Amino acid sequence: MALIRSVFQEELDGVSQSLVDLATMVTESMQKATSALLNAELSIAEEVISADEKIDTYQHELDSRIIDIIARQQPVASDLRALITALRMSADLERMGDLSHHIAKVARLRHPESAVPQELQSTIRTMGEVASKISEKVGTVIETRNTLMALELEKDDDEMDSLHRSLITVLTSGSWDKGVPSAIDITLLGRYYERFADHAVSVSRRVYFLVTGEFAPA
Amino acid sequence: MALIRSVFQEELDGVSQSLVDLATMVTESMQKATSALLNAELSIAEEVISADEKIDTYQHELDSRIIDIIARQQPVASDLRALITALRMSADLERMGDLSHHIAKVARLRHPESAVPQELQSTIRTMGEVASKISEKVGTVIETRNTLMALELEKDDDEMDSLHRSLITVLTSGSWDKGVPSAIDITLLGRYYERFADHAVSVSRRVYFLVTGEFAPA
Repeated sequence: MALIRSVFQEELDGVSQSLVDLATMVTESMQKATSALLNAELSIAEEVISADEKIDTYQHELDSRIIDIIARQQPVASDLRALITALRMSADLERMGDLSHHIAKVARLRHPESAVPQELQSTIRTMGEVASKISEKVGTVIETRNTLMALELEKDDDEMDSLHRSLITVLTSGSWDKGVPSAIDITLLGRYYERFADHAVSVSRRVYFLVTGEFAPA
Repeated sequence: MALIRSVFQEELDGVSQSLVDLATMVTESMQKATSALLNAELSIAEEVISADEKIDTYQHELDSRIIDIIARQQPVASDLRALITALRMSADLERMGDLSHHIAKVARLRHPESAVPQELQSTIRTMGEVASKISEKVGTVIETRNTLMALELEKDDDEMDSLHRSLITVLTSGSWDKGVPSAIDITLLGRYYERFADHAVSVSRRVYFLVTGEFAPA
């Protein structure tokens, strides 16, 4: 029985490590997507676009493994909840990868121009930095179950929301002279960064709940 | 044993019925949100916004029930997969509710004006009709496991994508004279309808896979 428990524990640790790996892939994707976007780097954009398939495959394999563990080990109560939560976290992380992929596609569409006009480069750069910081922290939160860091992510998300608002303010200020197509790009980009952070917060809240049994104060 | 199996089967049927109920709530939400948007009806927008909480609560209760069934019945193979798939479908349906809620919030924000200028009313009306048709069909697909109808949803989604493209074409045609704030509204609305349909297709593909063991041809 001790042996079975130990194999099971190893399997749970393996799931956790795979989620950390997914977070690492997503962070790299986001960093590259933002760089491709700001500097109109076509080859980097293409890298992110093809890496998304790897992220999807990695997630599908992880999900199959989790379902297989549930079927074989028939875990109850807290272990079952942890495995179901792992499925949800992998879905959030996969979606974060999709959003980096969307950003890279905007970069590719506008190449050789940058989709981001000069006056918004610094805001988008900061949104990219906050997004990368958030997904790095998500990896650490999954690995260490650090609930203080999980709470920090709520603040990071507030920072993202505030950057997003300032982006929309520039677009709607009346002095916007970059045209409607560019406003559409910026609107969608703003949404992608914001949703990326939302999914990261969702992952960190799930960890917080698993560890404490309580919902994180929003 | 026959009795246990029968209780279990009843529980599975109950899960399926709850997913159908969720699809019905989401369809109603989408219909009302579109009406609120096109006709600048504040009270209808408020109804959708407060109904979203009901949808979220319904989904959380359903998810708890599903996890409880897995814990008690310890299903293997196909039954376990069906229950995990039910969790994913409930997440998709909940997200469809969120997107209706987002549409209603745009309607509320622009009240007493309509957020949709006259020249785009017909396109958005059709997008709303396609969205409602899709989520109605999703309910039927879950209830009847009709794989032909599941495939129909792919075509409906193509129709949505084409409407979405025509929306963006109007915005970027150069003759757009409604200003950037209105272009931002329309960009986000287009995205909400498109994502709503994507999640519906995701649900119908999950049903298709459960029934046939194969991925739906895209």
